[in-house]
Amino acid sequence: MPEHSEFLHALTSLLPAQSISLAEEVLAEYAVDQGPVLDLQLPLAVVWARTVEDVQDVVLLAARHGVSVVGRGAGTGVSGGAHASRNSLILSLERMNRILDINPEDEVAIVEPGVVNAELNAAVEPYGLMYAPDPASYRMSTIGGNIATNAGGLRCAKYGVTRDSVLALDVVLADGSLIHTGHRTFKGVAGYDLTSLFVGSEGTLGIVVGATVRLKYLPVDSRTLAIFFDDFRTAAAGVLAVGKARIQPAVMELLDGASLQDIDERMHSTLRSRGGALLLIQTDGFGAEAEAEGVAAAVAPLGGRLSFEDPEEAGRLLELRRNSRGMDADLQTRVGEDIAVPRSRLVDYIAETEQLALRHQVNVRVVAHAGDGNLHPTFWTEDAEPQSIARLNAALDESVQLALEMRGTITGEHGIGQFKLQWLSQEQSPELRTLQHRLKELFDPSGLFNPGKAI
Amino acid sequence: MPEHSEFLHALTSLLPAQSISLAEEVLAEYAVDQGPVLDLQLPLAVVWARTVEDVQDVVLLAARHGVSVVGRGAGTGVSGGAHASRNSLILSLERMNRILDINPEDEVAIVEPGVVNAELNAAVEPYGLMYAPDPASYRMSTIGGNIATNAGGLRCAKYGVTRDSVLALDVVLADGSLIHTGHRTFKGVAGYDLTSLFVGSEGTLGIVVGATVRLKYLPVDSRTLAIFFDDFRTAAAGVLAVGKARIQPAVMELLDGASLQDIDERMHSTLRSRGGALLLIQTDGFGAEAEAEGVAAAVAPLGGRLSFEDPEEAGRLLELRRNSRGMDADLQTRVGEDIAVPRSRLVDYIAETEQLALRHQVNVRVVAHAGDGNLHPTFWTEDAEPQSIARLNAALDESVQLALEMRGTITGEHGIGQFKLQWLSQEQSPELRTLQHRLKELFDPSGLFNPGKAI
Ligand SMILES: Cc1cc2nc3c(=O)[nH]c(=O)nc-3n(C[C@H](O)[C@H](O)[C@H](O)COP(=O)(O)OP(=O)(O)OC[C@H]3O[C@@H](n4cnc5c(N)ncnc54)[C@H](O)[C@@H]3O)c2cc1C
Ligand SMILES: Cc1cc2nc3c(=O)[nH]c(=O)nc-3n(C[C@H](O)[C@H](O)[C@H](O)COP(=O)(O)OP(=O)(O)OC[C@H]3O[C@@H](n4cnc5c(N)ncnc54)[C@H](O)[C@@H]3O)c2cc1C
Repeated sequence: MPEHSEFLHALTSLLPAQSISLAEEVLAEYAVDQGPVLDLQLPLAVVWARTVEDVQDVVLLAARHGVSVVGRGAGTGVSGGAHASRNSLILSLERMNRILDINPEDEVAIVEPGVVNAELNAAVEPYGLMYAPDPASYRMSTIGGNIATNAGGLRCAKYGVTRDSVLALDVVLADGSLIHTGHRTFKGVAGYDLTSLFVGSEGTLGIVVGATVRLKYLPVDSRTLAIFFDDFRTAAAGVLAVGKARIQPAVMELLDGASLQDIDERMHSTLRSRGGALLLIQTDGFGAEAEAEGVAAAVAPLGGRLSFEDPEEAGRLLELRRNSRGMDADLQTRVGEDIAVPRSRLVDYIAETEQLALRHQVNVRVVAHAGDGNLHPTFWTEDAEPQSIARLNAALDESVQLALEMRGTITGEHGIGQFKLQWLSQEQSPELRTLQHRLKELFDPSGLFNPGKAI
Repeated sequence: MPEHSEFLHALTSLLPAQSISLAEEVLAEYAVDQGPVLDLQLPLAVVWARTVEDVQDVVLLAARHGVSVVGRGAGTGVSGGAHASRNSLILSLERMNRILDINPEDEVAIVEPGVVNAELNAAVEPYGLMYAPDPASYRMSTIGGNIATNAGGLRCAKYGVTRDSVLALDVVLADGSLIHTGHRTFKGVAGYDLTSLFVGSEGTLGIVVGATVRLKYLPVDSRTLAIFFDDFRTAAAGVLAVGKARIQPAVMELLDGASLQDIDERMHSTLRSRGGALLLIQTDGFGAEAEAEGVAAAVAPLGGRLSFEDPEEAGRLLELRRNSRGMDADLQTRVGEDIAVPRSRLVDYIAETEQLALRHQVNVRVVAHAGDGNLHPTFWTEDAEPQSIARLNAALDESVQLALEMRGTITGEHGIGQFKLQWLSQEQSPELRTLQHRLKELFDPSGLFNPGKAI
């Protein structure tokens, strides 16, 4: 198409060759994140920004040529939020990966968006600090992507989600301008909280080109308990028992038998032989030991097999949990969910999910950030026959309805992206959706950024 | 004015007599909050909503007659956010004060906006739960007002500010419609975070008529340390020392000698005789004792006089701190500030504030939510002579500039209201301010809600 060649020509004169790729295999690689693909689109180009000015230039050029801009971090998103849109370019932030400042006294860091979560954590650790949000993808995903999705993770039960750690943002808007929101101080209430509005907006309101994040204290101590149960529902009841004891673990993860087995197969572990479900709890801080004892007492009546793990084994178990999703993207035949329910409904939700999988003759395995009521059931079928896919979709749909009936949400931490738009109107009223579209229009009147996502 | 009599007539036929007052003394009482008054306006009427429908009806009627609506909780705001605007009515939410639901298993409560903070805390305490945000005004201020200002408080150093505890909101918009934002679950990332946008918007985007809040666990244990120092700067250095030890107290408050003396005079205590500055620290949770010992070790080199307080004395000290502001509204001759600076600048800020007060020949006393770098200097003069007021204003202005130079904010928790608008453009860029005005326009095109405040 001539207008594209014009655009691509302008793009190649704007940026150095190593900042652009038009290669087929690169376009294919960057066309999708790890989420299910409903409508595969190849981007016109992949562009790697090195500077804020690069982002501004690319945004302006794209706007001028009517080409959409899809921001991208590491592409580990699982909702299709970073899938290429029709007639779009992928704007990768992964090379803007410098940690610009660590101030251990102010307990803040300033980073470019492409900094990988684990790298920031490694950099601040010597100061006794941590960047708290730790999605299981923390070794790969970027702070910018974490911010754009408001990522959760394992320890957010105690330490909060990404939004709770972001103090200020630099954002390039659809008109190419750069704004700075927020404050460097822990608290600040001047004006509207635009920072929180950008957090979780999945690249639809602007491109995050810098962030000031708050760091928390590395815990002085931690205790890890592995509690194996025969069945998953009892394990889930353990979560409620810990809550009733009013103990707040840093990590409280649930894995069902199928998840344990899947991990064993991929990671050569032997978790499944220890039980049919695992409740993995880590307490931390000065009270770690006392809290762990409290947890043990709280779950004792449920009859699980409890063991205190030494630090090395604890680390290994948490890594296995982090690997429970595997490294594979969602497929037509396998889709991971991300619903959340009020905590009191955990056991019910799990019971009904097992039922509905049976009814629809699909497989299911479940892991959960159980402390937050955030469940990740993965449904899959053995083959890609149309009837199988139909059954899978019916099961998916029912599992989402179930969450909504229990006053839950269709997405606890992964975002709406492209894939979950199909359910959004069941969670949100038309008025609320209209309001969000009007907000989108205010920030991005021509619909430049990541069209067809998030709202 | 005839158009007002028409409006007032319509208002009195809309609501029962006990829901409206036009009485001079009531109008005067509700004309202002506790903040400085720059431009005294009497409201046309004071209206007490009993239901969501009342709020909707009043909003629609006011819109039809071009009368502004100023939402009001307990009127304890200290920035003039609840001051009557020209040609406005005061919409008080204080009678919508029912706790609609407490769910101890989900760890959430649903409240009407007029519920007083302390009452919610009293109601959830039997379940081992607390509503964490605790502005010093917690015995008077309302959850709706706390939400509208994103109130902080003493224990937010550890437990977060109001925004961190609000899951969902019911809001009446300028067109009289009611929207529900957010989720009942701890986590949820469907769509844009409108909840956070309304939190802290000071009644300019809509009227909060309901809130779902997250409850936290009441700590099993706590330890309170009172550390008296000869001078204030050394006490402030203690805050940094505790931070360096990577210990996170629940409460970390600083009071200078003048504040101690002022409290002594009003509350008949004897704090000033114990030292020239007080660092008041409370640790809590399972590790409270170990943390308190860590705090003691961290501050030991600074040579303060440290005492562990028994629970009763600890409660008394915290109440004295909460009373440090007194119950009196700001005056022309006495204004309380609310700046925040990055933590590392605490000592510098205090040193320079003492200097500038001397230079401008005004009095100053300072209390601080020191864990958050949030300082409340109160400046005052002995008389209301024009030169005295001029010196007071010069000192105020300089103290705010100083915070900005140190990369701080002009308001840590009290909000911009009406009084701090004079400094907002020094903190926020024209682009950011324009964006906020466009947001305001989107929500409230005719400028119905609380004009001349917040942005
Ligand atoms: C193995 C595995 C485990 C996971 N575990 C978790 C978990 O525990 N918790 C959790 O919350 N998620 C988890 N995820 C999902 C995913 O890792 C997170 O959503 C992560 O935050 C995405 O970061 P990213 O850098 O890969 O972003 P991408 O996938 O590249 O992008 C995600 C979204 O953000 C937008 N975006 C990216 N960068 C920017 C930017 N700079 N400015 C504006 N928009 C931008 C994209 O357009 C897209 O909409 C997991 C994924 C995998 C594969
Ligand atoms: C002694 C004292 C101590 C204080 N200590 C603290 C402290 O430690 N931390 C802190 O953050 N603040 C503190 N404050 C300030 C004040 O208490 C808080 O700002 C409080 O949140 C205000 O609540 P309120 O119910 O009194 O609201 P009001 O003063 O009535 O209103 C405050 C603002 O919110 C708006 N508003 C109120 N209700 C609604 C509603 N339902 N919907 C929409 N808008 C609404 C008003 O229009 C106004 O802009 C203190 C004040 C005093 C007098």
